[in-house]
This record gives sequence, structure tokens and C-alpha cells, in this order.
Amino acid sequence: MNTISDWKENAQSIALPEDRHFARARKRLDSLTKPLGSLGELESIAAQVLAIRAGSAQLPLKKGVYVFAADHGVTQAGVSAYPKEVTAQMVLNFLRGGAAINVLSRLHHAELTVIDVGVDAEFADAPGLYPAKVRRASRNMLREAAMTQEELAAALQVGVDLSEFAHRKGHHLIAVGEMGIGNTTAASAITSLLTGQAVANVTGRGAGLDETGRNRKLNVIRKSLRLHFPEPTLPADPIEVLRRVGGLEIAAMTGFILGAARQGIAILCDGFISTSAAALAFAIAPNVKSYLLAGHRSQEPGHHHLLRYLGLRPILNLDMRLGEGTGAVLAMPIIEAALRLYSEMATFASAGVSEAEA
Amino acid sequence: MNTISDWKENAQSIALPEDRHFARARKRLDSLTKPLGSLGELESIAAQVLAIRAGSAQLPLKKGVYVFAADHGVTQAGVSAYPKEVTAQMVLNFLRGGAAINVLSRLHHAELTVIDVGVDAEFADAPGLYPAKVRRASRNMLREAAMTQEELAAALQVGVDLSEFAHRKGHHLIAVGEMGIGNTTAASAITSLLTGQAVANVTGRGAGLDETGRNRKLNVIRKSLRLHFPEPTLPADPIEVLRRVGGLEIAAMTGFILGAARQGIAILCDGFISTSAAALAFAIAPNVKSYLLAGHRSQEPGHHHLLRYLGLRPILNLDMRLGEGTGAVLAMPIIEAALRLYSEMATFASAGVSEAEA
Repeated sequence: MNTISDWKENAQSIALPEDRHFARARKRLDSLTKPLGSLGELESIAAQVLAIRAGSAQLPLKKGVYVFAADHGVTQAGVSAYPKEVTAQMVLNFLRGGAAINVLSRLHHAELTVIDVGVDAEFADAPGLYPAKVRRASRNMLREAAMTQEELAAALQVGVDLSEFAHRKGHHLIAVGEMGIGNTTAASAITSLLTGQAVANVTGRGAGLDETGRNRKLNVIRKSLRLHFPEPTLPADPIEVLRRVGGLEIAAMTGFILGAARQGIAILCDGFISTSAAALAFAIAPNVKSYLLAGHRSQEPGHHHLLRYLGLRPILNLDMRLGEGTGAVLAMPIIEAALRLYSEMATFASAGVSEAEA
Repeated sequence: MNTISDWKENAQSIALPEDRHFARARKRLDSLTKPLGSLGELESIAAQVLAIRAGSAQLPLKKGVYVFAADHGVTQAGVSAYPKEVTAQMVLNFLRGGAAINVLSRLHHAELTVIDVGVDAEFADAPGLYPAKVRRASRNMLREAAMTQEELAAALQVGVDLSEFAHRKGHHLIAVGEMGIGNTTAASAITSLLTGQAVANVTGRGAGLDETGRNRKLNVIRKSLRLHFPEPTLPADPIEVLRRVGGLEIAAMTGFILGAARQGIAILCDGFISTSAAALAFAIAPNVKSYLLAGHRSQEPGHHHLLRYLGLRPILNLDMRLGEGTGAVLAMPIIEAALRLYSEMATFASAGVSEAEA
């Protein structure tokens, strides 16, 4: 078992994609039969993914979506519109193929893996589930740290194991999704600590709280922050932020993102919780940023602050707030289109089309 | 041959989709295993397309993309960064499969039809081209109306014919694209007249003008508007706007959109020029709006004003400005995803998932 300090060391070994791959991609994009730059963000996406893949334009992309599920001790404080049993019920829904992420994964040919990092239920006979339970739910952050050092190390390791699994599967592009009743509470706490934003600016209604419920959630987060970080500093220590106010699935996603970046896989963040893990990974190892793409912008107000913190522009902005990796998988055809255009369009020279007049 | 007044009459026969189809779609969306409303815009898109299709959720969608090509007499005044020969060269590129729209149509399984409404070239042996040339380029709007009454009626009819062709093909969703060097000049003039915006607010750099070129383009548009509409009124007469400062492909797209709405086909606008045709169709027959979706928001500044005029929210916003239908076809998988989610997701009841606590 790796300890946290092994962890930090490993994370520093993430290499940046090479500039020459970016430069070569840019050059080809400018030779294609279209006005210069007229494919907008698709050109940036193509260049980034080409560089991540060390110049390989091989298609089709092999795509995976990884959904990390866990429960949160803090749900005892009534921070969600849904009962905590929904985490386990939705895991079963994923395994039977009836959830939104199943529909989108089938449509866009992304291989779905569902990981139990800490659901508060036993899935004895659950074919298709990747079992990696660290503990039945994180601890209640209102009273103690969400994870002990050992639990955090174990959850991070689950993510690293999955990144190796994704590498063995040959996935070139992975979507990072989650399921966990109560996890917007953890993500809001993390976002406030990483960005320095006031709790009210980064806390929304989650899956559907009313105003009273949101106020209760705000109080829970503020009390937890006072307990664990009586004197918050910027930059915050991402490992301690994760351990004290995070969650098991957020820790696993953080390890997954760090591991995938080290494997040279393009990583597509989903919404607020998935991006909170990306922000932690970035705080631990800034080079991770070169491997990140943002699938969409969620309706959760904290997501906007995380995207700004990471300097990522979301591909989609459709007012979604579902999680599960749905916003990421929905963006996959855009990335695929960017790469196809790069590979398959004619050049001005090959098509005999006149270029712009100087 | 229909005259313009037959035209206006026909256009009034577009029926609105029935409210009961919207209501039934909304009810099902609320029963699916996700927090209420958490699929955001996807829910509106699903309900709209379901209603357009009179409640049919049959999949897969049959998709078509129609690219209308024509030249513009006003290119004589130097309003584009590219020589006008590029229109014909790009038509040949479409027919050989090397343009951006070919790549995207193949990827997303949209059947591509390229229509010559008025390219200033002869395509004697051009397999795959739909020949419907009204005239070799529209007239120079700086000196005379872009089209005579007869030319306008003929170009509108080309579009109607294509909408019947799309209906026979069984297309449920059509993207409206175009190719025509100089056509952002026409679209800017149309946008200024329909929305009342100053020319400078709705005129961009097109395919890549520099500042001097854009100033020349502004002057050309202002002079043309003074010639044809010395005392502009709001609302403008859309038929005369189209005839005097429009173009052959814009007229054909206007007829196509009106015809497709009458056939009950969902219509996906592309960028600035395609949306200028949708705005004209809407000004002629407001019911057309229920059939329109906006594929993306273009970088051309006038597009934003047209989308506001139409009350449409673009699905994508990726700083593209290529035309050809590319922004529309790129949005097709989002629409397809919305319909798949509608049809294939489990309900709370079927999956045994607990609903939100009241």
C-alpha cells in the first residue's frame, strides 16, 4: 500500500505533452480547406488531444467512462433532497442499464465501469460492478475528518488502479463520473478551500434542495470548515482538504486523474464533483492540467469557480446537473469530430482551393 | 411556377405542434431516474422534437444536411478575404468528400445534399450535385436588387422542392447549411433590417477580413441599405429584404425552412447565414419558430442578434465560423442523445429508486 508521501512523489512524475506535437497539429489545422481558425474550439481540442497522444491521430478513439460511487457520513445532517439509499439504488440502476449514463455510453460507444469505493450497502451478487470498497461511507465531516490517512491512501489507490485498468483497456479518452448522495456538500467545501470563495458562492441546491434545505447545507459546510480549517490558507493543502472534507469517490477520482495523466490519457471532467477531484489533482501536480478537458458547465454555482481555477473552458453548457459522467460523455462526439476533421479534411493544396488574399 | 403571393399564402398554412405532445413528453421526462429537470436543455430539446414528430419517439433519427451554394454579385466590391472562385472550388470539394461538412456528415450519419442555386460556374459532370441554378450569382446589391421578383420566386421554389425531397427521404431532422463567398455581407444587411441593429453591430470579418476590409464591407452594406431602404421600417417586409439585399442561397434556404416546417420536420439552423434565412422565414410565418433549433452560436457578431430575434438558444458555443452546416451537424448527437435518454432511461417506479423527499 502506498502512503500519502509516496503519492505526492509519484504525482510529480507527470510529464507535459511535447510542444512539437502541438506545433505540428497547428500547422496541419492551418492547411485544411477552411478559413484560418474557423473551427474555433475544435482546433484547440484537436491540438491538445493530438499532443497528449504524442502526435497519434489513430481513430476511432477508444473511450471509457468510469463512475465512482460512495456514500457520505454527512448525509446524517440532512444535506440532500434524496435519501442516502439512492446511492445504492442508482448503482443497481447503472448495472441494469437504466440510468442516463448507460444510455449515453451506449449511444457514444464509451465502455462503462462502475466502481464501488464506499457505498453503504453490500452488493454480493452484482455482476459488472468493480468492487473496491474502502469503507461503508466516509465519516461525518461535521464531527471528524471524512477519512483517516489510511482510508484516504486506500481510496487514492483505487483510482490509480483504475487508471492502470484504463491503460490496459487501451482507452484514449476517459470520462470521470460519480454517484454519491451528499457529495455536492463535499465538493462545495473543497471548492471554497481551494479557490478562497465564500461558501455561499459555491453551494447550490444539489439534486433539488429547497431554500430551507440549502440554508441547512450552508450551515453544515461552514461548521465543517470551522472545525477542520479554523484558519484557512491559500493555497490550501489539497491532501488535507480531500481527507477532511472530501469523500471516498472524490479521493478515488483524484487518484484516477493523476494516474491517467501519468499514463498519457486524455481526461474529460464531468460536472461539479468530478471537477472538484480534477482541481485537487491539479493542486497536487499542476502538470495534470495539460491532460484535462471539461465536458460541460454544470448548473451548480461552484462549478464555474472550479473551471476558472483550472483555466478550463467547458465544451457544453446545457444547464445539466446530473453527474454520473453524463456531461462528459455527451461531449465525446465533439472531441471525436475535432479529431476526424483534423485527419480527414482536404488541404488547400490537395483540393485545389484558393487561399485568402493577403 | 408559384408567384410571391402564392408563397406568402402557403407559408401561413404551417401548423403549430400540439400542446398535448409537449405535455406528455414533460410528464415522462419527470418520471425518469434523475433529479427533476437535471438534464437541463436536453429536456427542452426532447420535448420540442417529440412534439414536432407528433409524439413519435422512433429511433434512430434519419438526418439530412442540405448545403445551398450560390455566388454574390456584391463580391465585385471586395467584401471577402477569399476570391469568389472559392464557392465553386468548395462545391467540388464537397462532391469529393474533403470539406469539413463531409467529415461531420459521415461521422454523424447525416445524408448530405449539395444544391447549386446560383454558383457562377458550370458543373457539367458533377455527380452528386443537385442542380437548381437560378442564375450565375445574384445581382450586385450596390447597383440593383440582388434578385428580380421572378428570380426570387424561383430560388424560394428550389427550397420548397428540397423540403419535399427531404420529406420523401424520410428525414426527421435537417441541418441547413450554405456556401457562398460574400454571403456574410448579405446576412449582415438582412440582420440590420430585421432587427433594427446598426450595421456595425451585425457585421464581422466573415471568412477573415482585416480591419480595412471590414470597413470596406461596412461601407458597401450601408450604401446598399441607403439605396434599397432609404427609410427603413420595423417590422421590415421580409420578402423585399430578401429580394433586394439577400442572395440566391439565402432565398432557397428560406423556402426550404418554410417548406420543412409545413412538412413537420425538425430544422437545425447552422450559423449566421443559415440563421438569417430562418429569421426571414419566421418574419414571413411566425409559426415556423416551433420547428427551429439552433445548432450553435457563431463568432459572427450578427448571429447573436438573430438568435435573440428568433428567441433561440444555441446548443453549442465553440467559436466556430465556418458555415456549410458544420455547427448544425455537430449538434446532431446532442439532439439524438436527448431523444435516447427520453426513450431508454428507466423510471423511478421501474428501477425501484426512491424519489426526492417532499
